[in-house]
Amino acid sequence: MRYKKKIFDREGDYGSGNNQEEDSRIIEGRNAVLEAFRSGRTIDRLLIQSGCQDGPVLTIKREAAKQGTVIDFVAKERLEQISPTGKHQGVIAYGAAYEYASVEDILEAARAKNEDPFLLILDNIEDPHNLGAIIRTANLAGAHGVIIPKRRAVGLTSTVARTSAGALNYTPVARVTNIGNTIEELKKEGIWFVCADMDAKPMYQQNLTGPIGLVIGNEGEGVSRLVKEKCDFTASIPMKGNIDSLNASVAAGILAYEIVRQRSFQ
Amino acid sequence: MRYKKKIFDREGDYGSGNNQEEDSRIIEGRNAVLEAFRSGRTIDRLLIQSGCQDGPVLTIKREAAKQGTVIDFVAKERLEQISPTGKHQGVIAYGAAYEYASVEDILEAARAKNEDPFLLILDNIEDPHNLGAIIRTANLAGAHGVIIPKRRAVGLTSTVARTSAGALNYTPVARVTNIGNTIEELKKEGIWFVCADMDAKPMYQQNLTGPIGLVIGNEGEGVSRLVKEKCDFTASIPMKGNIDSLNASVAAGILAYEIVRQRSFQ
Repeated sequence: MRYKKKIFDREGDYGSGNNQEEDSRIIEGRNAVLEAFRSGRTIDRLLIQSGCQDGPVLTIKREAAKQGTVIDFVAKERLEQISPTGKHQGVIAYGAAYEYASVEDILEAARAKNEDPFLLILDNIEDPHNLGAIIRTANLAGAHGVIIPKRRAVGLTSTVARTSAGALNYTPVARVTNIGNTIEELKKEGIWFVCADMDAKPMYQQNLTGPIGLVIGNEGEGVSRLVKEKCDFTASIPMKGNIDSLNASVAAGILAYEIVRQRSFQ
Repeated sequence: MRYKKKIFDREGDYGSGNNQEEDSRIIEGRNAVLEAFRSGRTIDRLLIQSGCQDGPVLTIKREAAKQGTVIDFVAKERLEQISPTGKHQGVIAYGAAYEYASVEDILEAARAKNEDPFLLILDNIEDPHNLGAIIRTANLAGAHGVIIPKRRAVGLTSTVARTSAGALNYTPVARVTNIGNTIEELKKEGIWFVCADMDAKPMYQQNLTGPIGLVIGNEGEGVSRLVKEKCDFTASIPMKGNIDSLNASVAAGILAYEIVRQRSFQ
């Protein structure tokens, strides 16, 4: 008896990152957070205590808006849970462990090698070990870069850097506000988008050569409907077993290497 | 078909920290450990305090020898570090979270499906998340079982069970004393062995159809020389990037699915 297959499933993916490691990225207190923004440091995410509306907080919000940083308004208790020193003053920022590239950097990397662009687009990967392993795979499969969303996904934390086994030093990772819009923009550059989908034709029967963006979904829910609709076609990994889904980074590796195989026999 | 009787209920597997999970497998004290052996419970590993030579300890050693359990002689301090209650009396055993299958069970699974055997042989995978992800992949790629060594490798812990996302309930895992000898035995059954090796011909150029055992090496060192020499041929995953290696479970997934691809186009 076969179940309906999902390509990804959160259960069984790696646990969340080491708290101590993540602590080193926390910036807290109004002055420290404002200083971080003004020094040009990339802030992954900003937490502000709900209801805080005074001058310094408004200034921080303006700086965050300039950088396009995602702001979450949270209860005081949440901030106290996260705060390493207890002196958050209603504001906690997460600094990026690594700097992000732009989408243009990724296209430039393909041009510099005189190759058809090969991108990985991750629609809300949440687990830092999966993100790190996918960046590692992207590097070795010869992809020119990885695109991740700003919201509801893990950023370039130190756990991601470590799990990428050095790949983060070579493979550019860009963070965008809206994956769907980015796909639309990249289609104008002649890139085709293939979406990993359990109900699709097997990947072996799809033409995956040429300029391509491989879209990998979230561990629990796969690729979101809106993003799937933007894709040119879908491809599945054949599933013969009893369980529902592969680990997200394993699935990304299998699909990326089917692209490598087809490109090498072109 | 279910191959393994689950000893812990699933709720327990999804519990909090790693340590607590592993703690539930610890059996300590002379009577408790002896009782565990005599009840037929599978013991992954036995730790005995160096120098302990009295009657009860010798009895436990005899029971361990009967089961083929690996014994490590360790300092008292080590036992005290591991012991949850402090009452180890010089003896700590790790019970298996899942029951192991035999190699014969795996061959029987292939015969029952009337398929050429497809095995994964893991030469010292150390990370429980990698082992879990590989068992998950083995299930979905249609492999009939996984073979792991008794020494210097992770066993079927509750972390492995959880990371396998349920695959451990379906895909048999056998544990053997010597991987090289097991390969020799299985060759007599007509199985060919392919070894993952960076310096080999690309996997696309090897014939991976027919009865096959895919040998995956340790995270740091790859496949050991002795095991590699037993293999019939080697195959590589093409590497285009700047770093050295893929994550072990991603590499296993890519190679296993090249076997799936070649088998499906036979």
